[in-house]
Amino acid sequence: MNHQSADAEVARPRRRVSNVDESRAVIISAAAECFMRKGLDKATIDDIADEVGSTKGRVYHHFRSKNAIFFAVYRRAMELCFEAVEPVFASDSPAAQRLEGMAHAHAMVMMEHLPFQRGIRSGVEMYLHGSTTAAERETLTELIGIRDEYERLFRRVLEDGVADATLEVDDVPIVGRAILGALNGLTDWYRPRTGESGAEREAIARSLTRTVLNGVVRR
Amino acid sequence: MNHQSADAEVARPRRRVSNVDESRAVIISAAAECFMRKGLDKATIDDIADEVGSTKGRVYHHFRSKNAIFFAVYRRAMELCFEAVEPVFASDSPAAQRLEGMAHAHAMVMMEHLPFQRGIRSGVEMYLHGSTTAAERETLTELIGIRDEYERLFRRVLEDGVADATLEVDDVPIVGRAILGALNGLTDWYRPRTGESGAEREAIARSLTRTVLNGVVRR
Repeated sequence: MNHQSADAEVARPRRRVSNVDESRAVIISAAAECFMRKGLDKATIDDIADEVGSTKGRVYHHFRSKNAIFFAVYRRAMELCFEAVEPVFASDSPAAQRLEGMAHAHAMVMMEHLPFQRGIRSGVEMYLHGSTTAAERETLTELIGIRDEYERLFRRVLEDGVADATLEVDDVPIVGRAILGALNGLTDWYRPRTGESGAEREAIARSLTRTVLNGVVRR
Repeated sequence: MNHQSADAEVARPRRRVSNVDESRAVIISAAAECFMRKGLDKATIDDIADEVGSTKGRVYHHFRSKNAIFFAVYRRAMELCFEAVEPVFASDSPAAQRLEGMAHAHAMVMMEHLPFQRGIRSGVEMYLHGSTTAAERETLTELIGIRDEYERLFRRVLEDGVADATLEVDDVPIVGRAILGALNGLTDWYRPRTGESGAEREAIARSLTRTVLNGVVRR
């Protein structure tokens, strides 16, 4: 278990984070909540300022538009995924074991950072349909590139599993999408219960991981 | 193969469909295309009329609002799912075999009726966030009920598989969602290639089905 007491929190040496970074992080987090609750199209800068308990001015001090905030939410959502999954991908274990760890870690990120992950699911679609500026489309293309790079981690572990004979994969891109689809579905149906424990989320992640790794047909 | 010649089409006794039903079906189908192409929020009744090659008046003759058309698209999308999957569910085979057939049939519906299936994925969410009337919310609740009923077919076959010992399932609702998530992901990433054959779609459906049934870990 990784719970820290308040004292440990104070004693622990902290990464140096500027006040600007902290302000931005607070706004990004509040925006993710608003996007989840009201929908990306309906949420306003006012809603985000209310969620932060701040003024619209403070929000505009850091971001020039709602689109800019959405892009920051997207970027953070992908960072959270990479931070959880990349170390497992890069470990020395056989591919089947790495895939198991990656699937579990991905499922946990979906649940523990639900507003971030949920906000970005439908968002890109909406922006691609919408009237974006050339600069915004460039940012979107970059963000989609980051997402593709993340998806490639799963393809690469599947290829590694074919190579080390721990996995059986007939079509790497499609199987990769099946696995991520099964896990990403969490953003559609998972809602934390009041008082839910980390152990309950772990159990959900284990069931999903077992399904994508072992299937359901009795051996 | 089930291709019918034009003659066979003429000779075959047809289900009696009124002109009103046919007009409605054409509008619903055009609307599904528009929702996919422009996004649900951006598509207008004008776009739908253009797609049909008709006037706005004709569209309004059949539907009182864009919301009403969206609901009809949703209803039809679910009918298409039930038509493909329910007969397999109701067959006499062992549960593992029925699940295989159901997953394959569901994947094929996602691909062959992509505009319908894609339109409804983000739609309900948007309408729940949006400003709907009491009557509309009632319809939405009914439609979500239909979707839940569909999901129950998958849960029931999983339960049957535990009973007839052809499937190994630790948590029926979560495994059901993993399976549908893996298949529904198609609406995010599948786009038909120009000149794509039915055989190519069958191959995609088989890869997905094999993944959700057998997993990827080498036995």
